[in-house]
Amino acid sequence: MREVAVLGIGQIRIDEHWDKSLKECAGEAIFSALQDASLASVEGLYVGNMMSGSANRQQQLGASIADWSGLRFSEALHVEAACGSGSAAFRSALMAVASGELDSAIAVGVEKMTDSPGSEITSELATAADADWEVDHGLSFVALNALIMRRYMHEHGWKKEHFAPFSINAHANGAHNPFARFQEPITLADYTRAGMIAEPINLMDASGIGDGAAAAVLVPAELLRSRQGTRVIRVVGSSAATDTISVHNRRDGTWLTAAERSAKLAYAQAGVSPADIDLFELHDAFSIMAALSLEACGFAERGQGPRLAGDDQIRPTGRIPIATRGGLKARGHPVGATGMYQIVEVVQQLRGQATGTQVEGARIGMSQNIGGSGSNIVTHILRADY
Amino acid sequence: MREVAVLGIGQIRIDEHWDKSLKECAGEAIFSALQDASLASVEGLYVGNMMSGSANRQQQLGASIADWSGLRFSEALHVEAACGSGSAAFRSALMAVASGELDSAIAVGVEKMTDSPGSEITSELATAADADWEVDHGLSFVALNALIMRRYMHEHGWKKEHFAPFSINAHANGAHNPFARFQEPITLADYTRAGMIAEPINLMDASGIGDGAAAAVLVPAELLRSRQGTRVIRVVGSSAATDTISVHNRRDGTWLTAAERSAKLAYAQAGVSPADIDLFELHDAFSIMAALSLEACGFAERGQGPRLAGDDQIRPTGRIPIATRGGLKARGHPVGATGMYQIVEVVQQLRGQATGTQVEGARIGMSQNIGGSGSNIVTHILRADY
Repeated sequence: MREVAVLGIGQIRIDEHWDKSLKECAGEAIFSALQDASLASVEGLYVGNMMSGSANRQQQLGASIADWSGLRFSEALHVEAACGSGSAAFRSALMAVASGELDSAIAVGVEKMTDSPGSEITSELATAADADWEVDHGLSFVALNALIMRRYMHEHGWKKEHFAPFSINAHANGAHNPFARFQEPITLADYTRAGMIAEPINLMDASGIGDGAAAAVLVPAELLRSRQGTRVIRVVGSSAATDTISVHNRRDGTWLTAAERSAKLAYAQAGVSPADIDLFELHDAFSIMAALSLEACGFAERGQGPRLAGDDQIRPTGRIPIATRGGLKARGHPVGATGMYQIVEVVQQLRGQATGTQVEGARIGMSQNIGGSGSNIVTHILRADY
Repeated sequence: MREVAVLGIGQIRIDEHWDKSLKECAGEAIFSALQDASLASVEGLYVGNMMSGSANRQQQLGASIADWSGLRFSEALHVEAACGSGSAAFRSALMAVASGELDSAIAVGVEKMTDSPGSEITSELATAADADWEVDHGLSFVALNALIMRRYMHEHGWKKEHFAPFSINAHANGAHNPFARFQEPITLADYTRAGMIAEPINLMDASGIGDGAAAAVLVPAELLRSRQGTRVIRVVGSSAATDTISVHNRRDGTWLTAAERSAKLAYAQAGVSPADIDLFELHDAFSIMAALSLEACGFAERGQGPRLAGDDQIRPTGRIPIATRGGLKARGHPVGATGMYQIVEVVQQLRGQATGTQVEGARIGMSQNIGGSGSNIVTHILRADY
């Protein structure tokens, strides 16, 4: 397969966009990415979205968004892996260009969650869990994560406040990101007095929903060799792995097997180890997920994710900066769009455009997007070359 | 890209499967395809499905079905292109193997339509049309097709009964297919006295819904060179194209531009012309769509699709056999599964296993799957080599 590079990125602020439809949100991110890439069009469109069929009563987002965005007649496809849909779309676009089937493609993640006609978002999010064996028994998505977090605290002896640094770091970084849903820092006091949602997960452990869209243009890397003086952002690792959809079916409920597998495959492809990663946009839908991802991907020993955070090693100046533009917690988590925000933010860091939270000398960045409670995990490693 | 072959196929009868869940339907088709391929497992799973998120309250069909089918930990993805989802999944699996990213993959199309909790199927099907500009104004999917058919009859002077041969051929062929929803032939009288749904579309112009699943295993073709005496079924053409999602936005409402584009790309890849195609599994969701597909793909002059049918040229012994195992009309149309039934049936023909409706000496077969009212169209050409 040929090498592929990210030529352009685009995003909209995550917010309650009552004045914009789903396709308008997606279109803005697409136009912005095409403009950033100085391209008028691309050959294929890959849309990551989780819930438009039920929440917005619109399927066919491939054709619908291609039509709206001036890509009519192009190949266009909608891919879904729950909250991992964004990265899954990026991986599909990557494979189309890497294989030589297409010479350019755009991946867009989009979700419209705040004015869905006649549906309730907690119930929509639950479709990422097992309908027969989890949801039917009354488990919501946050409840599933609360069970995992409680077990993790029991196994490793952490208290609830040990998870505060994840949230504090995310909000501190989000304050510098004009596209973030929440742009104000929080204190330890804000964390500890936040309302409980599903014990031990409180409001400051949980990411916020919203309407959002983010996009990236992919082209063969060889095309860019001639462009003088530009950093070429190559996709050097890409992989996906699954686990049981039900958490109770796992041999080990506090270990993300699919994250470990997916990260190892990506490291091998890129020829790097965790020590080479300059920043990591991980999937902090809940603070417990941030801890588990850091461990599964080799940045912390098992059970030691909160220690890494407590030691300030996850900030932009730390050993492994995470959530550098706010993460799911503060930038926001418009589920099917999130994976594409992660990619866009890694590219910003590798270009040196992460104003206020720039990781000095960042050259290799990683993103990891999780669908369900760890059941479908997509990892990407990007590298800047001069 | 490397050449890819279909090593195994599997399907379940399209029916009202009140005793089987969505994942059980998919699992049966997958197990059957793996057994046919003499493989215990594959590296990746691509699931085509349209409406499980709303109709079955289960998203994440990649992880869910991988888990259920013994493919846990594999890469697994759900792709959606409305009624074109099945072929879109096949194309995604094809690209994964053709690119070298995976050495084996399975594509499964699955839909569970007959016992969806709290949702109404006509309303689910409407999510394939434009939510803002078609559905909001009261157009159902059959109504959209009725408008196209009425215009077509006006433009080309056909009467309603001229569409009868499409339905009669489909039911005559379906009578020989043990997996078909309807296995009884119909007469011209049955057609003319069928109840009207949305004039001029009556019950015999419209395909039947149902629960169904069909699957195919893809491997690199070079793997099969050593297997003596087996026909190798290669995928020699694959392409996708889109059109406006709203029918009223098209310059020409009675011409399937995306079908023409997609077919031409596939012909070019395969190095063939319409004259070389021995059978064509087309998307006869409504009889008007059969006529429009035949024209857009170069088998009939514009406006002359019904003449081809009236001249008996679409039967297994005709110039271009269509719906050879019953088509959407009689085999049935479990929307997201349909594209995979088409692929499975083309493979049956090329293997010489289409008992009762075998096209003599069939060597090159084509399938075309349509999402929406012609808005997302995926075409495949398969060839049998000895």
